Amino acid sequence: MVKAPVEEHPKAAFGWAARDSSGLLSPFNFSRRETGEKDVRFKVLYCGICHSDLHVVKNEWGNTVYPVVPGHELVGIVTEVGTKVQKFKTGDKVGVGCLVGACHSCNNCANDLENYCSKVIFTYGGSKYHDGTTTYGGYSDTMVADEHYIVRIPDNVPLDASAPLLCAGITVYSPLRYFGFDKPGLNIGVVGLGGLGHVAVKFAKAMGVKVTVISTSPNKKKEAIDHLGADSFLVSTDQDQMLAAMGTLDGIVDTVSAVHPLPTLIGLLKSHAKLVMVGAPDKPLELPAFPLLLGRKTVAGSCIGGMKETQEMIDFAAKHNITADIEVIPIDYVNTAMDRLAKGDVKYRFVIDIGKTLKC
Amino acid sequence: MVKAPVEEHPKAAFGWAARDSSGLLSPFNFSRRETGEKDVRFKVLYCGICHSDLHVVKNEWGNTVYPVVPGHELVGIVTEVGTKVQKFKTGDKVGVGCLVGACHSCNNCANDLENYCSKVIFTYGGSKYHDGTTTYGGYSDTMVADEHYIVRIPDNVPLDASAPLLCAGITVYSPLRYFGFDKPGLNIGVVGLGGLGHVAVKFAKAMGVKVTVISTSPNKKKEAIDHLGADSFLVSTDQDQMLAAMGTLDGIVDTVSAVHPLPTLIGLLKSHAKLVMVGAPDKPLELPAFPLLLGRKTVAGSCIGGMKETQEMIDFAAKHNITADIEVIPIDYVNTAMDRLAKGDVKYRFVIDIGKTLKC
Repeated sequence: MVKAPVEEHPKAAFGWAARDSSGLLSPFNFSRRETGEKDVRFKVLYCGICHSDLHVVKNEWGNTVYPVVPGHELVGIVTEVGTKVQKFKTGDKVGVGCLVGACHSCNNCANDLENYCSKVIFTYGGSKYHDGTTTYGGYSDTMVADEHYIVRIPDNVPLDASAPLLCAGITVYSPLRYFGFDKPGLNIGVVGLGGLGHVAVKFAKAMGVKVTVISTSPNKKKEAIDHLGADSFLVSTDQDQMLAAMGTLDGIVDTVSAVHPLPTLIGLLKSHAKLVMVGAPDKPLELPAFPLLLGRKTVAGSCIGGMKETQEMIDFAAKHNITADIEVIPIDYVNTAMDRLAKGDVKYRFVIDIGKTLKC
Repeated sequence: MVKAPVEEHPKAAFGWAARDSSGLLSPFNFSRRETGEKDVRFKVLYCGICHSDLHVVKNEWGNTVYPVVPGHELVGIVTEVGTKVQKFKTGDKVGVGCLVGACHSCNNCANDLENYCSKVIFTYGGSKYHDGTTTYGGYSDTMVADEHYIVRIPDNVPLDASAPLLCAGITVYSPLRYFGFDKPGLNIGVVGLGGLGHVAVKFAKAMGVKVTVISTSPNKKKEAIDHLGADSFLVSTDQDQMLAAMGTLDGIVDTVSAVHPLPTLIGLLKSHAKLVMVGAPDKPLELPAFPLLLGRKTVAGSCIGGMKETQEMIDFAAKHNITADIEVIPIDYVNTAMDRLAKGDVKYRFVIDIGKTLKC
């Protein structure tokens, strides 16, 4: 086993890390900081596997610092709180999502949009914490974070199936709210039925809107409608279906992170409507100007959400019994899970049972 | 001279038309309909040359029906009104912009957005009027249109320099209003300093916002600041300038109709800000997702404006002494003007003196 170079914190920690762009994960001893005055320390019980984890362990975004302990959908039980912590106590159910820090002095921070702070500190993947040390994610036995970045998990929800909401959930919840896609009666499209998309359908339905799932896979239709509650389903490669649905949607949340054609999706929008991308294709998409101009349409982006909204999302999910559909796996299955994730072979999110299966 | 085939209206009209994709304009006898109950007929005095005219006469958008009489920035004096016309009388100064009809039963029409009606009838360029006949534009001696599509030109404004406002003016005014770029204190970018851009600077300044002109031409800086009143100027190809201005703009009106790079422009926007395209490049632009996602930014389109807003724009222009900077030309200079326009050699809009120079 490899020790993290240089950085030595007083608290031993253990997890699984990738050491190079093979992305292969293996056991890793490292350390975390002491519980600071405003810190909450918790034992990690579950951690979701986000598609970003896969991008980062393989350095597909080009900015990975190895060794990297992935995981930004982690939940567990508080074991220690700092002397100035106000909102949490030992034994509380909590979670951490994509963020563990920000500047707290810019406009975005002032507006509870830490996720858009230019100095945002991500839970893992190359970010440095305020003390200059590397941040490590949730494929690990313990976590410590400032209480501002700790999300309270309501008592009545299953911890494992709620973990993915901390990234997948807020990623789709935030644009549904911000772009006004949450008005009952609207017809909202969800493009891609994966980890993000299936949660988007659930949130949108709970908000009272009609949901049209748009997918390349005809065989997802039954699942989308019967199980997830979508109102209709379009196969994006079926020209007749797509033509018939032109101009019918009040908004689209596009969760696809592969390069894909925008014009037909834009065509589904009514005038003045918006398509919001939450997936991040690694190559530019082709954007023709005419379809935007002729209907005063919009293509926008949205990236996770701030801490206040993340808590709101978790509370909304608890109220409406929304969880992710998950496949719980032991930690030693994680590399196989990554391979399956790369092929889209999961319904719809892997969650690692850290509490029962991660052993030093 | 060629007569228009088939369509015979009772009123003889005369103008200049292009007969094929050479785009060459030459004298053309045609006819216009009788003045209907709700129609306003006027003698055309001036007509601006819009870049769209150039695209259409050369069939660069692929949908031109020849012969085509271009011109959708026409102004003149009312000569006759129908029995049910309420708002205009003989002798009034009036104009027609890009539209002469729409369905008047859809949502867009109900919201004074005839320009986004799927059955909009354009002033020229292949549209068919309700009676099935081809519409002809303003490079002609007379015009007739339903009073709903007639704009009143205030008495205190010069007719020639106001003509371009009917397309160029409303094209930039509408997005400045709709996208909230009109709040005093905002810093708004205008990309491209041509027919649209120079008017955008004037309107934005009159709305009380700070204006940054972004152009590929360093030699337009003095003009932009000293003459048009822009607050600052960025050369889009100067990486240092562009980097230094990252994240400083509250909105951008992008008037460029050639293919151009969006990422650096998106980089100029603050978080949550919008870039609105009003030019229509004939090929798709490259849109990388990350810059949109990371700042929740928007790329949108906007296309001219409805009739109510067009009248509001003209009245606002009159109040703030806003006109286009024009070069008045005789009709027999029009082909040379088109050549110069193709090279960007005009400050900033050609206007044809129809009244004095168009002779049968």
